[in-house]
Amino acid sequence: MHRIYLDNAATTPVDKKVFEEMKPYFSDNFGNASSIHNFGRNASEAVEKARKQVADFFGADSGEIIFTSGATESNNLAIKGIVKAHYKKEKAKPHIITTAFEHHCVLNAVKNLEKENLIEATYIKPERDGVINILDIKKAIRPNTILVSVMYVNNEIGTVQPIKGISQMLKKYNSNIIFHTDATQAVNYFDCNVKKLGVDLMSMSAHKIYGPKGVGALYVKKGLNIAKIQDGGEQERGLRAGTLNVPGIVGLGVAMAGIRNYESGIRKIKSLRDYLIKRVLREIPNSKLNGSKIKRSPNNVNFSFPGVEGESLIMMLDADGISASTGSACSSGTLEPSHVLLSIGSKPEEAHSSLRITLGKYTTKKEIDYTIGVLKESINKLRKISGNVLSDYYKLK
Amino acid sequence: MHRIYLDNAATTPVDKKVFEEMKPYFSDNFGNASSIHNFGRNASEAVEKARKQVADFFGADSGEIIFTSGATESNNLAIKGIVKAHYKKEKAKPHIITTAFEHHCVLNAVKNLEKENLIEATYIKPERDGVINILDIKKAIRPNTILVSVMYVNNEIGTVQPIKGISQMLKKYNSNIIFHTDATQAVNYFDCNVKKLGVDLMSMSAHKIYGPKGVGALYVKKGLNIAKIQDGGEQERGLRAGTLNVPGIVGLGVAMAGIRNYESGIRKIKSLRDYLIKRVLREIPNSKLNGSKIKRSPNNVNFSFPGVEGESLIMMLDADGISASTGSACSSGTLEPSHVLLSIGSKPEEAHSSLRITLGKYTTKKEIDYTIGVLKESINKLRKISGNVLSDYYKLK
Repeated sequence: MHRIYLDNAATTPVDKKVFEEMKPYFSDNFGNASSIHNFGRNASEAVEKARKQVADFFGADSGEIIFTSGATESNNLAIKGIVKAHYKKEKAKPHIITTAFEHHCVLNAVKNLEKENLIEATYIKPERDGVINILDIKKAIRPNTILVSVMYVNNEIGTVQPIKGISQMLKKYNSNIIFHTDATQAVNYFDCNVKKLGVDLMSMSAHKIYGPKGVGALYVKKGLNIAKIQDGGEQERGLRAGTLNVPGIVGLGVAMAGIRNYESGIRKIKSLRDYLIKRVLREIPNSKLNGSKIKRSPNNVNFSFPGVEGESLIMMLDADGISASTGSACSSGTLEPSHVLLSIGSKPEEAHSSLRITLGKYTTKKEIDYTIGVLKESINKLRKISGNVLSDYYKLK
Repeated sequence: MHRIYLDNAATTPVDKKVFEEMKPYFSDNFGNASSIHNFGRNASEAVEKARKQVADFFGADSGEIIFTSGATESNNLAIKGIVKAHYKKEKAKPHIITTAFEHHCVLNAVKNLEKENLIEATYIKPERDGVINILDIKKAIRPNTILVSVMYVNNEIGTVQPIKGISQMLKKYNSNIIFHTDATQAVNYFDCNVKKLGVDLMSMSAHKIYGPKGVGALYVKKGLNIAKIQDGGEQERGLRAGTLNVPGIVGLGVAMAGIRNYESGIRKIKSLRDYLIKRVLREIPNSKLNGSKIKRSPNNVNFSFPGVEGESLIMMLDADGISASTGSACSSGTLEPSHVLLSIGSKPEEAHSSLRITLGKYTTKKEIDYTIGVLKESINKLRKISGNVLSDYYKLK
């Protein structure tokens, strides 16, 4: 069976070219990048080449890039590292502003710091279209606000946040407030020039951009006061201990370099996405697109199909060779309705009927056509079953 | 130039067989192990197979293995996770016992918790032979001691610690005290059955056992009260957030499975080590072996050559195609004398004249013979230079 992968927001395959560049660093140039001998120097050179590739993509200096094990660690480091650095100098409890629909690694980091009584926190709700209103952040600022963390692109509904607008507002209002963005879902499709955006910290992960799992990066603006959260050796300018994952880092660098000049690819994905949205909304009754249609990542589609249980739909699609999801892979297995959909005002039953389809650079029109066909059939079947269940239920009553 | 790699304690090449097993999980079976569709299930099955391989090696259950980004993270999670869990239930400041010659990721985790006023800590000095005296640990126990963390094999001098003896003493003395061991340097050569050893937490890293960099594991005894330190999704039974590094985890599993029945390999390495020690001590004047000759890892040799600057020796060996180190790769670049050598009573100048040679499964007798030859020559040269410098110095005075 030809399998159709439409879950590119969960992870992407490693690009064959990326893998080819990684290969020599497993068994041949296998040195520890901290070693001073030949093997070590070769490893270190490869790491620094990758660091330059990542820095160039962000419009940053190499010295501003910290390699981590992925976006989760990058986000943890950004948030906890800032709070830790704060307490090295001050005693007063700081305030953090984030949004209600961040990925759990940001949301839970903030929530847990709040529970531990280390910070005050405000969680800004997005508007119904899944976009944060800059004024809501402005209103939430307190004298003790030290950090604002807003994701660039939401991982479930793909809505794009006004990062540049937020940073401009912050600079006018209180230029001491540090601004962090989780750009994990943005890197493939949006300008991530940290200077143009005006961010101080930016997180990303390689496996969302056709690079390997287990490696990510954090951009840390020069001079920013941040503390390490993982203790050990003095790797990464003392900000992240642990032997560098050389092949992973090489893969991250090559994957990022590969994103440049990707305009035509983005156009193709966007037109496939719009075609999919148009046909589904027209051909599947009672279907609803979650999140703004305009301020949206080129690869993201998120529908609700009232009367359909999202997980059942995923399983039916899967049986027909299509891989999609209800929301974040990191939350799958939990029975909680999506906090993202709830945050934009969806009712729990709407949230439970959601389907996320995320396209990638290998997605074809043929795959989308097939998917629409299977989707129509599956939703029809599921609605019949749930309709019967409902009518049986009412009969019994 | 045929390069001779004698720095296997810093890192090892990925075994070709291990790499072959990892390969399909980069670009083909590339799913996110948390996804419920076909790609996700394939990834998850591979992860669970690896988890079983690791669990089997440790004589543990699969549910007791947490995958991390490496030993540094495992050690951070073990120590900080226990302290965090403690404070969820209690207010009183706990006490931790560790040793003065742990790897920096254990030592700095403990030191920083102490600095943050979250714990009291005792750092046990090893005896002059580099082995911890169980009685010293016993004497350090306080009513509020919650954790003892002692490494299994020291990463610089290769000395083996009495893990089983410590656990037996703890069980008799106060069975509530949690016992953690960093087994990173032990996994290749020593019995790591957690039940036989009687440990509650055990850390390890794949790249020290011919597996990939960027992945490790922590054994967490069933029922142990430990908190996560990296917030995010609910991966790893809620104990470690972040997308699983599937190819890395597969590699870790295969590498661990490959260690079993490795007895003849260990014998070979040990006899090469003993040959090297014997010839160096006999043929290089004023050479000294650091750490016990008997209670020592089969692959570790650590000499001091008075009058020789360790880093210069490394560079000379490197010029002749031999990769060795002065101590931990994680500390290289710092000018501090090795905290390990200082802890066993070496003077700073002795510590600065150290050379660590760590053999691996690919090391040959021919390589060792060549290395001894180069070593003799290099030390001769360096001593002449430093002798001249010294005599010039005295002439000037």
